[in-house]
Amino acid sequence: MSKHFNIDHKRDERVGFQEIVFGASKSVDQLSKIINDFIKYQKSVLCTKVQKKKAEVLSTEFPGSFYDEISKIFLVGKFPIHFSKNEVAILSGGTSDQYLVNEIYFTLKFFGKEAERFQDIGVAGVHRLLNNIEKLKKFKVIIVIAGFEGALPTVAGGLLPQPIIAVPAAVGYGISKGGRVALNSMLSSCANGITVVNIDNGYGAAMAALRILNLK
Amino acid sequence: MSKHFNIDHKRDERVGFQEIVFGASKSVDQLSKIINDFIKYQKSVLCTKVQKKKAEVLSTEFPGSFYDEISKIFLVGKFPIHFSKNEVAILSGGTSDQYLVNEIYFTLKFFGKEAERFQDIGVAGVHRLLNNIEKLKKFKVIIVIAGFEGALPTVAGGLLPQPIIAVPAAVGYGISKGGRVALNSMLSSCANGITVVNIDNGYGAAMAALRILNLK
Amino acid sequence: MSKHFNIDHKRDERVGFQEIVFGASKSVDQLSKIINDFIKYQKSVLCTKVQKKKAEVLSTEFPGSFYDEISKIFLVGKFPIHFSKNEVAILSGGTSDQYLVNEIYFTLKFFGKEAERFQDIGVAGVHRLLNNIEKLKKFKVIIVIAGFEGALPTVAGGLLPQPIIAVPAAVGYGISKGGRVALNSMLSSCANGITVVNIDNGYGAAMAALRILNLK
Amino acid sequence: MSKHFNIDHKRDERVGFQEIVFGASKSVDQLSKIINDFIKYQKSVLCTKVQKKKAEVLSTEFPGSFYDEISKIFLVGKFPIHFSKNEVAILSGGTSDQYLVNEIYFTLKFFGKEAERFQDIGVAGVHRLLNNIEKLKKFKVIIVIAGFEGALPTVAGGLLPQPIIAVPAAVGYGISKGGRVALNSMLSSCANGITVVNIDNGYGAAMAALRILNLK
Amino acid sequence: MSKHFNIDHKRDERVGFQEIVFGASKSVDQLSKIINDFIKYQKSVLCTKVQKKKAEVLSTEFPGSFYDEISKIFLVGKFPIHFSKNEVAILSGGTSDQYLVNEIYFTLKFFGKEAERFQDIGVAGVHRLLNNIEKLKKFKVIIVIAGFEGALPTVAGGLLPQPIIAVPAAVGYGISKGGRVALNSMLSSCANGITVVNIDNGYGAAMAALRILNLK
Amino acid sequence: MSKHFNIDHKRDERVGFQEIVFGASKSVDQLSKIINDFIKYQKSVLCTKVQKKKAEVLSTEFPGSFYDEISKIFLVGKFPIHFSKNEVAILSGGTSDQYLVNEIYFTLKFFGKEAERFQDIGVAGVHRLLNNIEKLKKFKVIIVIAGFEGALPTVAGGLLPQPIIAVPAAVGYGISKGGRVALNSMLSSCANGITVVNIDNGYGAAMAALRILNLK
Amino acid sequence: MSKHFNIDHKRDERVGFQEIVFGASKSVDQLSKIINDFIKYQKSVLCTKVQKKKAEVLSTEFPGSFYDEISKIFLVGKFPIHFSKNEVAILSGGTSDQYLVNEIYFTLKFFGKEAERFQDIGVAGVHRLLNNIEKLKKFKVIIVIAGFEGALPTVAGGLLPQPIIAVPAAVGYGISKGGRVALNSMLSSCANGITVVNIDNGYGAAMAALRILNLK
Amino acid sequence: MSKHFNIDHKRDERVGFQEIVFGASKSVDQLSKIINDFIKYQKSVLCTKVQKKKAEVLSTEFPGSFYDEISKIFLVGKFPIHFSKNEVAILSGGTSDQYLVNEIYFTLKFFGKEAERFQDIGVAGVHRLLNNIEKLKKFKVIIVIAGFEGALPTVAGGLLPQPIIAVPAAVGYGISKGGRVALNSMLSSCANGITVVNIDNGYGAAMAALRILNLK
Repeated sequence: MSKHFNIDHKRDERVGFQEIVFGASKSVDQLSKIINDFIKYQKSVLCTKVQKKKAEVLSTEFPGSFYDEISKIFLVGKFPIHFSKNEVAILSGGTSDQYLVNEIYFTLKFFGKEAERFQDIGVAGVHRLLNNIEKLKKFKVIIVIAGFEGALPTVAGGLLPQPIIAVPAAVGYGISKGGRVALNSMLSSCANGITVVNIDNGYGAAMAALRILNLK
Repeated sequence: MSKHFNIDHKRDERVGFQEIVFGASKSVDQLSKIINDFIKYQKSVLCTKVQKKKAEVLSTEFPGSFYDEISKIFLVGKFPIHFSKNEVAILSGGTSDQYLVNEIYFTLKFFGKEAERFQDIGVAGVHRLLNNIEKLKKFKVIIVIAGFEGALPTVAGGLLPQPIIAVPAAVGYGISKGGRVALNSMLSSCANGITVVNIDNGYGAAMAALRILNLK
Repeated sequence: MSKHFNIDHKRDERVGFQEIVFGASKSVDQLSKIINDFIKYQKSVLCTKVQKKKAEVLSTEFPGSFYDEISKIFLVGKFPIHFSKNEVAILSGGTSDQYLVNEIYFTLKFFGKEAERFQDIGVAGVHRLLNNIEKLKKFKVIIVIAGFEGALPTVAGGLLPQPIIAVPAAVGYGISKGGRVALNSMLSSCANGITVVNIDNGYGAAMAALRILNLK
Repeated sequence: MSKHFNIDHKRDERVGFQEIVFGASKSVDQLSKIINDFIKYQKSVLCTKVQKKKAEVLSTEFPGSFYDEISKIFLVGKFPIHFSKNEVAILSGGTSDQYLVNEIYFTLKFFGKEAERFQDIGVAGVHRLLNNIEKLKKFKVIIVIAGFEGALPTVAGGLLPQPIIAVPAAVGYGISKGGRVALNSMLSSCANGITVVNIDNGYGAAMAALRILNLK
Repeated sequence: MSKHFNIDHKRDERVGFQEIVFGASKSVDQLSKIINDFIKYQKSVLCTKVQKKKAEVLSTEFPGSFYDEISKIFLVGKFPIHFSKNEVAILSGGTSDQYLVNEIYFTLKFFGKEAERFQDIGVAGVHRLLNNIEKLKKFKVIIVIAGFEGALPTVAGGLLPQPIIAVPAAVGYGISKGGRVALNSMLSSCANGITVVNIDNGYGAAMAALRILNLK
Repeated sequence: MSKHFNIDHKRDERVGFQEIVFGASKSVDQLSKIINDFIKYQKSVLCTKVQKKKAEVLSTEFPGSFYDEISKIFLVGKFPIHFSKNEVAILSGGTSDQYLVNEIYFTLKFFGKEAERFQDIGVAGVHRLLNNIEKLKKFKVIIVIAGFEGALPTVAGGLLPQPIIAVPAAVGYGISKGGRVALNSMLSSCANGITVVNIDNGYGAAMAALRILNLK
Repeated sequence: MSKHFNIDHKRDERVGFQEIVFGASKSVDQLSKIINDFIKYQKSVLCTKVQKKKAEVLSTEFPGSFYDEISKIFLVGKFPIHFSKNEVAILSGGTSDQYLVNEIYFTLKFFGKEAERFQDIGVAGVHRLLNNIEKLKKFKVIIVIAGFEGALPTVAGGLLPQPIIAVPAAVGYGISKGGRVALNSMLSSCANGITVVNIDNGYGAAMAALRILNLK
Repeated sequence: MSKHFNIDHKRDERVGFQEIVFGASKSVDQLSKIINDFIKYQKSVLCTKVQKKKAEVLSTEFPGSFYDEISKIFLVGKFPIHFSKNEVAILSGGTSDQYLVNEIYFTLKFFGKEAERFQDIGVAGVHRLLNNIEKLKKFKVIIVIAGFEGALPTVAGGLLPQPIIAVPAAVGYGISKGGRVALNSMLSSCANGITVVNIDNGYGAAMAALRILNLK
């Protein structure tokens, strides 16, 4: 039988961060093999979007592992001991987006960055954003999450000078089900210089922030 | 040959306002016949979205008619002499949306309502909206136009208590070309109780405002 | 850990009605925390689209709460004692749309308005609408629900002079699955001055009616 | 060089009507060759959707030909001398749909059926349909054209017992531009037993009527 | 509480056939009430697309009822005793489409027409259609079902002279999942005079056939 | 009752390979009948996309059958004894695509071709492809699977001279959920002469390879 | 100023055929520079989809060049002197598809293969295909072009054993405008082992055929 | 008449760069007024996507202005005298994308950054990228443009550690017409931490780069 997985060990060298495992479409069996490959090379391994049932099996197989039920982040190994703080702010409109807030938060933590979370900064009550502007100006990168109509990054983009990474959330119903409206809204923003990642791609937003923070 | 047009003379009686003519997909010849039908009944007639070339021919045929090149509104007859003011405010994000601002403005004027226009209230500079809030609270109906990401009605909806009618404009490019992103964004708004009309349907927004203003 | 929820206590002051909780994408745990926050401020709280299983758990936690299984409206606290009547009529085509009829009905009830329901006014038997026209003319706002081809608001809009809020229902199959056909049909209506809300957004239609009824 | 066109001479034998030529995507040169092929076999030939400029050239080449500028039907040869009447009624909502009314009318005429046209039966004034119901009940087949929200076939379908063929027109703007909303609305109709043809396929509707009328 | 259902008792009189109940989006409770309403008027009632679990409960409540698990047709009452035969042929490409074959078959049976079924007439083996042409020419109406690329009605339409009603089936995967490709293919058919109903609308196809067969 | 299935026994003769059974939308009962038909003619039968639960029942009914849980291939009968090797290479980006790798692998095996699998040739680490180029040049046909952005066939197409069949996988989330992005990306490839099959159509890719390999 | 174009001189070596120039989105000025680069290296150069006006200017600049107005192929240099014949058959449904027939024909000719053209093999008259089956069986590769519903490759695929490359044509109107219906229909084909290229990508189909013919 | 334009003079202060004018949907008259407003405040003004005909009129009105016909950038005023270099690299696949290369180049130049352009780095010849990797590693921000299948950012993202901003170009035909395929492909990229802007939004990509470069 052919071989199914080769860790891209040189990714770190090439792009400055190690490979992460996308957990959603892999079976427990496949994930287990991959995690053991990482362990063999004495590396920690972070898996994203690991469904709860799969995480429960894996938690038994890998004692001491970490699982965040909200974001479905699964970690075998350890978060770094030292963190840099005040580099990334994560803004979101409310409780429904928390799964992405956490995916970003834990991915950055895995790479030694502790982000600050500003939740419930909903655009339907714009004062909540306005009240935080001075505080927000101190961060290097702003990540903004929104579902439904996805307007928050546009308002934030008109008020803040930093790099802004917009993350559409698959939160909504009717026409906004699945997150496409938020995605398209962010791409069309009349605020300048906002960049966007795929729907629910919290992990990708964290990596984009990391690429910026890694600049010398 | 069969007959092609019957004015719905009782519409006024049934729903409180007379029939308006959609000009975009009718030929000069067809429009001319319809206008003459109205004239026969001694009525003014308002045609929307009449392309410039067609309007030029019609202007010659109907001397004294009014044509607004920006909105493509064509009027044979007269605007009423007396207007009620301060009932409708029209908000928009900038110069590109002016064609809709005017379509709404002249349709309301045809029915005796003079709207006030607040242009360049762009969401990428939210202070421009905030500075006008007290002034805006005095109107009965707020009509909000936006193209691109269509975020303005959402921000307005969180700050103002009146009926808000959102009008998506076919202004944008790439993913927002044609106005669908603005439309979907408005429909998905996390602000409460906003209603929406079709893309570029300034006329419909004016009629919806009229239905509200006609309430006793 | 950061804080996840801040009630927008001033919304009432700004826009004339208090905040409502969107229940579909929140966990029982998250809803429970939010409801307790409202209780702390001695407010009733209305949650929309709370799935049955979640409502069962919450009903145990909050005894005396109200749950309508059809609309999935969950209320902790009380409906007002006094209602104004004859202000809103809700039209729908049949049994399949009842979940939206109820969502609108109970949301308006929460804000002290008792709506009248006209169900089974299907457009495939237009006499059912025609027979009710005189009765319908007495209401201030007409809310019209339709799934499938969404034609009912168009026919109603040609017969009634009041503000008409069209609500597309995610009822249908094949091409009309999910409610987009009804939504697009309503937005494209050749009847004048109809406004539209998102698919299944009964709550939003109720709030839009409220904005109109709150006009002095 | 290879041969480009073979008339399907046996189509008549197989399906009961001869081949018709789709003119929109063929050059004048290509149309000319095809028409000459028909002439060689002493047949009349009907071409649909022939753009005006192309028709002008062809009219010169084929003197005595017939061209309807509204429907863009081009005929070389003759309409039959005897017609059956009162078999097909064509309903439409107004002047903008006339191009399809005519395409259907002339196609049926080519096959010896003279249809009756009921124009301006708009659904926003449903009395115009109701007033014609008794008259309409006398036809064998009803063809209903509609653009925008496409609601007319649904209302007609609830009132009339005959075969109803719905034809969506590419008339509308914003979301209904191109005729998809009308098409989808017709396909989703809650009226029973309506069938639908492609957007702007007046010719196809005529042929479908013919298949019914040809039944013994 | 308001009333939820009114049988459209005059539909039979208006359009020649009685009302049928769409079962998919109604609860057991709602269906039960509706069925009892029909029973009260001593009518048989046919419900379409009743999911198996719901049918099991209803079968207990209405002993002697008929349920076809494949098409999900549920009948309370009786099929007529006498049938006309050889009026409708149902063509389909294979086993996967059988749910629609049966929905059409039983709906027609309810109205006293026994259709003949030609299954496994797949277009990828066109000889299977060619071998049946002479036999098929004897029917008055041809109903053709297809999923995937939906090509069968096009081939049949070029070989048969009768009215052809095409029914797209939600059978396929990848790009053809949900039946849209088959639907669009049928609408675009280069065969003449084919008409189309909504995806999975076997019931509608049967009613369209009935409208034709009811012609005097 | 009518007959539901006719094996297309002459397909082999016409196109060079026997019929295969699409299992996803057939019931256990339907599959069982079809398999028995093949057995009656002493043929092996391969069923694709047979869901696990159905396969478990069928495995009991047909002892000695083969089922691959990953690809959901179900075989009653035997794979050929002799294989030709080194004719087809299957490239894929990682573990998530394995279900298609196997569907292709086992389909080709059924027809006597043993493909070689190159898994984890992800485009985000292009060296993994570059390192295998010389090895890959020895195969007659290259099948390339990709989900997400579907870029792998484009890069491969610029480096390899053989026929390249691209297979989009329904692997991804957000905008790439369902495989459409990969499909469209492959169709749009700026590499020359790549051909594409439907999303998840591993079986079709295998058959396309077979058509090439069967050329004399 | 930076350099805009580098011929990929080694493409021939890598993949077995030289680079071709996509003409549609390049200006005359840009095309002229690129062609001169090829001339410098004494190579012939084939440009696809060069609009007529641009070709007229280029024809003057490069005397002796070849331009086919139907396919918009522009060649500077020479077609090879010797051709292999009987390797590729091009099937199409009629005159409207000729632009693709020619694009494929001339591209293959540029690479020394003379294809045979079978035009007017329309699927609505399936006998035209059946009559040619024996003749078609002699070719190595079959390329099938279709617009509208795109059914021809499916029927051909059930009758012929060779590699079949399906090319969707942007010929149609209404729902089939732009070629998507034909594309999706081909991808969904229930015939086995058909592969597909992008809409209007005649050039790509030719290259895919070439990859097969180049196999030893 | 109401006022149509207010320069957002404080944008510079808020977000670190001045307002830019979107020229595509404004008339010459509107652009002229806006430019004069900037002149009044002694500011240079950059307008994007100004169509050639409009630019010709404006060039006469504002002598000494700069217009780049390829990108349609129009500048009244001056580019800065001093530039920082080696901060941004712009990658693109070929001549067809040059309009975006230039839009980015001139926007960055307006803000004092001279970008380096790497054109013809097409993904179908991946060696052209590989040969430039060491050179590219020296830049702070990489902007990657691609039309068609949009694969270039994915390959670049796997080889380079810097912030990568992907810009989809509306270059392609058939399924990739309009740039959506490139956009979706970039959003779905399996390379980590790539961010994306709207189709053809070269200006936005430049501003996003500027937000990064402005970080202290």
